[in-house]
Amino acid sequence: MTPQAKDLALLRTLPLFAPLSDETFAKLAESIRFDRYVKGDTIVRQGDQAKWVMVVLEGFVKLTRLSANGEETLIHIFGRGETFAESVAVLGDKHTTTAEAAGPTRIVRLPAHVVAQAAREAPELALAILHESSAKIWALMDEIEALKAQTADQRVLRFLLSLVPAHAKNAEARLPYTKGVIAASLGLKQETLSRSFARLKNIGVEIDGRTLRIADADRIASEIERLNRIV
Amino acid sequence: MTPQAKDLALLRTLPLFAPLSDETFAKLAESIRFDRYVKGDTIVRQGDQAKWVMVVLEGFVKLTRLSANGEETLIHIFGRGETFAESVAVLGDKHTTTAEAAGPTRIVRLPAHVVAQAAREAPELALAILHESSAKIWALMDEIEALKAQTADQRVLRFLLSLVPAHAKNAEARLPYTKGVIAASLGLKQETLSRSFARLKNIGVEIDGRTLRIADADRIASEIERLNRIV
Repeated sequence: MTPQAKDLALLRTLPLFAPLSDETFAKLAESIRFDRYVKGDTIVRQGDQAKWVMVVLEGFVKLTRLSANGEETLIHIFGRGETFAESVAVLGDKHTTTAEAAGPTRIVRLPAHVVAQAAREAPELALAILHESSAKIWALMDEIEALKAQTADQRVLRFLLSLVPAHAKNAEARLPYTKGVIAASLGLKQETLSRSFARLKNIGVEIDGRTLRIADADRIASEIERLNRIV
Repeated sequence: MTPQAKDLALLRTLPLFAPLSDETFAKLAESIRFDRYVKGDTIVRQGDQAKWVMVVLEGFVKLTRLSANGEETLIHIFGRGETFAESVAVLGDKHTTTAEAAGPTRIVRLPAHVVAQAAREAPELALAILHESSAKIWALMDEIEALKAQTADQRVLRFLLSLVPAHAKNAEARLPYTKGVIAASLGLKQETLSRSFARLKNIGVEIDGRTLRIADADRIASEIERLNRIV
């Protein structure tokens, strides 16, 4: 397989493309563009006209908002297989957030007018786009729930547990982005995150640079349970 | 006009229905159901199969999440003209939140299978549904930004300012829901909200039961500006 053919085969497995007929997929594939970014690169800018539907192939994309006071707030982070800007692009709106690469990142871009036209002809694409938007609504609701109802330690534990395979006993994983980005994504100050990391040593969680080591994943799950009960 | 005809004429002006052809609207109108609720009534329950696309005609609907510890978190509040459950219903998913009337409320319900079928035949309906989901994504992002980046006073001032007409000098308005619900929607403890209300007297904001009086809306806007600069 050529690298291009490999990428197309990978795309076919992603939520936005998997439900499509071969015909619809072939039509989209004709105008697909692949882009590479390094950490800190701006992919799209808040306020710009949305012209592309984008899917993360590798790496992580940070969505941030610039407020009236010039302060940048991290709203969400997308990872592999996640689609972004699909609704603003298809609706012809402007980007409401800035998207930036959080590290080495590969993106697939599809021209908005091609996707919009294909969605009119193929209802399964319209539904796949709606599905992506719906998944985003759930993820944002999760985030609001965490911000309103969970303590710093609960948010940190849930995040760390999301990095290791389900049912793993002990595990080692790489932190997907810097501590600054992790803190911002959890709505914490960096000092608060560091203090939380320090406390977690007592339950067998060790963070060494970008490496996370968990001695006993069950113990983390029961610590989350315990914190749930006392909040 | 009969009350039913009045309601249908009103529906036609709402974002979900305005872009539809007469034919598509007529098809949906056949299976529309109107429901009334009083404060505290459950409209749909988290975990239940989504069977209806719903639109708020009058009043307010609170979306809440029940977490593992049995704690209820207010995620969002919908008002007149706003659609909810549209994506979960069309996609055949389960409700991820509980919807409850925050006061006297009227709701329009459309059977999910009728909407899904009509959306396959009429791309303008699929786009209108996507538009509603997109509006929800923006609103939830606003909420995350406020929770992460704004102080209690900033959130309270923005909320109060949203209740009075733009460009009003002095204004009187009714608080749309109880102080408990306002506090929960802003991610604040009720005591924090009360302390914030007390501080706002100094800039001509008076809250008397459910009545809000603003002596000078410009002063609120410049207070928001000032707080933006010092955060």
